[in-house]
Amino acid sequence: MSNILDRLAETIESRKPANGGDPATSYVAKLFSKGDDAILKKVGEEAVETVMAAKDARHGGDSSKVLYECADLWFHSIVMLAQFGLTPQQVLDELARREGLSGLEEKAARKE
Amino acid sequence: MSNILDRLAETIESRKPANGGDPATSYVAKLFSKGDDAILKKVGEEAVETVMAAKDARHGGDSSKVLYECADLWFHSIVMLAQFGLTPQQVLDELARREGLSGLEEKAARKE
Amino acid sequence: MSNILDRLAETIESRKPANGGDPATSYVAKLFSKGDDAILKKVGEEAVETVMAAKDARHGGDSSKVLYECADLWFHSIVMLAQFGLTPQQVLDELARREGLSGLEEKAARKE
Amino acid sequence: MSNILDRLAETIESRKPANGGDPATSYVAKLFSKGDDAILKKVGEEAVETVMAAKDARHGGDSSKVLYECADLWFHSIVMLAQFGLTPQQVLDELARREGLSGLEEKAARKE
Repeated sequence: MSNILDRLAETIESRKPANGGDPATSYVAKLFSKGDDAILKKVGEEAVETVMAAKDARHGGDSSKVLYECADLWFHSIVMLAQFGLTPQQVLDELARREGLSGLEEKAARKE
Repeated sequence: MSNILDRLAETIESRKPANGGDPATSYVAKLFSKGDDAILKKVGEEAVETVMAAKDARHGGDSSKVLYECADLWFHSIVMLAQFGLTPQQVLDELARREGLSGLEEKAARKE
Repeated sequence: MSNILDRLAETIESRKPANGGDPATSYVAKLFSKGDDAILKKVGEEAVETVMAAKDARHGGDSSKVLYECADLWFHSIVMLAQFGLTPQQVLDELARREGLSGLEEKAARKE
Repeated sequence: MSNILDRLAETIESRKPANGGDPATSYVAKLFSKGDDAILKKVGEEAVETVMAAKDARHGGDSSKVLYECADLWFHSIVMLAQFGLTPQQVLDELARREGLSGLEEKAARKE
């Protein structure tokens, strides 16, 4: 199902100015041309927007807004991964590794 | 590749107290038992940790920490989605919809 | 010393469209005219920028950038307070109340 | 009015382990002993909690929770300032400088 994540990662990669992305016409190329802080700011910003959409959904709003904001958050995460030479597949591999290692609850052991 | 996202979503769903998850032994069940704010706080917190890991990576740190934090961010996003009756597949569908509609650059039109 | 906080709060209050603030010429009036989410987004965004400036400062950057970002964070906090009918004086009163109640460590008791 | 900010900064400074603060009994000393990331995480976390309290307030909740969370945010901002050798007075000075320079709207010129 996540071929979409692979395709997104590829398209995002192609938007790097070094790969011919044009900041004048591409939103992603423009983000790359601004650099780390602009990209990281978007990750933080989309997380806050996701939280706000979830609060609204709980208070009677539209839960599809949570989906849109979560999609924005994951999208900008992938731009950030690309900026640091990483891919969504590596994130999925890490999630699978944790699952294989000790189940979901490994997280608890590690974090608490 | 993302069968891992499906499997994660299923396991997370099974951790809801209503589905038999036990807050005493499961990190995820405990999060669900605390409710919206505890889950949303984690989404915000993991976004900040991702940003900090990325800054460290840029300043000579280990870029694998960016992967771990991004995995934490996506993991807690999926817990949040489950809390609101949503699935990672729906997020991927939304990302695919945007791609199909007008390419990656639809984002630009919509947001700027 | 914090007469500046009072003065800021007053000026910000005067920028509310209901008080004659003009979104076309005033940044703050524009924020008010956009409403809650635009203001709350700025609070989240400035927090992330503060965190990034602190990471840069630790890695050899200029610590005065931490000051600027913290000033931005407090500034937008005051806009948010005004949006909800609150003042920085009330925040200072709350901080003083905690200090009077049980010293700084009351926080620990309450939170941990 | 902000003598409280000065007093807070002094008390926080005295909680640094180098100044005799004891992580076993003081919340702030414990934060300092954990270092930068623990402190910065709190700044991010309190910003998210402030945003959530504001959303709740707008949806019929108690606006005094916004005050409490904003107090938490400023409190942890001051811990962060101390961690980087800075003081709330310097933040107020920066806010006053901007006011003197060009009024509140200097912000607009600088940021937009």
